[in-house]
Amino acid sequence: MNTTILFPITKSRNGENRDVEDTLAIEEPLEIILIQNFNGEIIRKTISITMRTPGNDEELAIGFLFTEGIITNFLQIEKTVLPKLNTVEVFLNKSNEINLEKLNRHFYTTSSCGVCGKTSMDAISTIQPGIDKTKLITVKQKILFTLPATLRKHQEIFEATGGLHASALFTGNGELISLREDVGRHNALDKLIGNQLTLKRIPLKGYILLLSGRASFELIQKAIMSGIRCVASIGAPSSLAVELANEFNVTLIGFLKKDGLNIYTNPTTVI
Amino acid sequence: MNTTILFPITKSRNGENRDVEDTLAIEEPLEIILIQNFNGEIIRKTISITMRTPGNDEELAIGFLFTEGIITNFLQIEKTVLPKLNTVEVFLNKSNEINLEKLNRHFYTTSSCGVCGKTSMDAISTIQPGIDKTKLITVKQKILFTLPATLRKHQEIFEATGGLHASALFTGNGELISLREDVGRHNALDKLIGNQLTLKRIPLKGYILLLSGRASFELIQKAIMSGIRCVASIGAPSSLAVELANEFNVTLIGFLKKDGLNIYTNPTTVI
Repeated sequence: MNTTILFPITKSRNGENRDVEDTLAIEEPLEIILIQNFNGEIIRKTISITMRTPGNDEELAIGFLFTEGIITNFLQIEKTVLPKLNTVEVFLNKSNEINLEKLNRHFYTTSSCGVCGKTSMDAISTIQPGIDKTKLITVKQKILFTLPATLRKHQEIFEATGGLHASALFTGNGELISLREDVGRHNALDKLIGNQLTLKRIPLKGYILLLSGRASFELIQKAIMSGIRCVASIGAPSSLAVELANEFNVTLIGFLKKDGLNIYTNPTTVI
Repeated sequence: MNTTILFPITKSRNGENRDVEDTLAIEEPLEIILIQNFNGEIIRKTISITMRTPGNDEELAIGFLFTEGIITNFLQIEKTVLPKLNTVEVFLNKSNEINLEKLNRHFYTTSSCGVCGKTSMDAISTIQPGIDKTKLITVKQKILFTLPATLRKHQEIFEATGGLHASALFTGNGELISLREDVGRHNALDKLIGNQLTLKRIPLKGYILLLSGRASFELIQKAIMSGIRCVASIGAPSSLAVELANEFNVTLIGFLKKDGLNIYTNPTTVI
C-alpha cells in the first residue's frame, strides 16, 4: 500500500523557479466498520471515519477500538478484513461482551478522532489502565537523549515528505521496538498500540513512548490505556496532557533533545 | 481568559537539573451548544465538543458552524453567550432556515474536529465557496517570503509555550489582518474565520491564509468555505490537501521560508 505519491510542483529557491517532482504524504479517509453476530442477527456499524495515511489499517482499527475502550482485549476480535480501499471491517467474537446496539452513545460522544473525545477530566476517569499506577518505573536521562536520533533515522516517510507524525516504542535501554507514522498523530499512536495488541504485549510495562510532535490530552489518554508509564515528546505538552499524566502517575517529558529535556511529572523517576 | 499557565518542572540541560516554572498552553474542552426557538419550542443541541485553548470561544463556535456548513451567514445567529466555563451557547435566529432536528446526521458524520469530517472527495463536493473559482488571483513571491517572520513576531503564545498552532490572514501586500492560535490547528482556523465572519468580511477575496504547520485536507476545506484563494503553509501539505486545492483552483504553497517555497497548485499565479 502506498504511503506517498509523487506530484509535480514548482520549487522556488533563491529567486529561481524549477519544475520538479515532490513526494507527498498520502491522506485518505479510513472507514472502520464493526460487525457482530448478535443472537443470529448480523449488525454492522461504522464506528469511525478518520483521515489517515494508508498502511497498517488493521492495526489502526484495532488500536482505535482499544484506546477508545470499545474493546478491552484482543480476544474480542474474531478477524479483521480489508474488503475494499479505505475500509476495514472488524468482526467481533460471538462470545464477547460488547453490545453494538448500545455503542451508539459512545461512538457519538467520543467521535472518530479522539480530540473531541472524552469531554472532561471526569469523563476520562473511566480510563482503566492495565497497570498499578502507584508503581513507578525509572528511566535514564542518557537513554532518553538517544531517542530522537533513533526516531529520525527510522522515520522514513517523514524524511521523504516532511509531513508525518510518528509514535515510537522503546525499551528502557533505548532499543526501538516499533514505529508508526501517519498524517494524524492520534492515528500513528493507535497504529502502534494496535500493533502491540496483536502481539499480545499490552499492557506496555517498562517501555518508553516517544511522540514526534506535541503531547496533547488525547495522546496521553491513549498511552495510559495501553499501560505506558513514560511518555517523551519532541514538542511541548499541553496543560491537560500534564494534568492527566499527573493523575495517572505517568512520567511526562517534553522538548526532548540530544542534550536536554523538560520533566513535567514524576521528576524523581528520571535518573 | 487565560491561555497559558505556569507549572513547576525540572529542566535538564547539559547534565544539570534545575527546578523552574514553565509556561504551558492551556488545553480544555469547549462545548458548543446550538439553541433554537422552533415554532415556539426551544431546542438545545450540543453540536461539538472540541479540545481547545481558551479565548475567542465565540469566534471559534461561529467559525466552526460556518466552515462545517451548519450556518451559511452571520445573520442566522441571533447572539452568542458564554453561560459558564468551557461552554458557548449559540442562539439561532428565529427566521433562519436551519432545522436543528434535522442536523443530527450532519453532526454525527462530521464530528466536532473536522478531520473525521467529510468522508470522501464526493462528500465534500457539497462545498459552496462564496467565490467564482475560475477567477484566479496572483500573489507575489517577495511578499510571501515576508510572512513567516511576521507570523512569528505576532505569535505570542507560541513564543511562550512552543505549543500552539496558528492561522493568520494577510492582505496581498503582506499586511497582517488577523491571527489566531490554538492547541488544535483546526480551531485556530475556525477562530480566524469566525472573527472575519463577525466583521462581515467573508468571502475572504484577495487575502492570503498562512498556516503555521502542515496543510491537511480539513484546513483546505475550511479555507475554501471562507472564500480564500491562496493558502501558504510553513510545513508540508498532504496529498488530499493538494487534490482539494487543485479541484477548487486554490493556490497552495508549502514549506514557506524567507527564501524559498514550494508551489503545489496554480504555479502561474505566483509571480
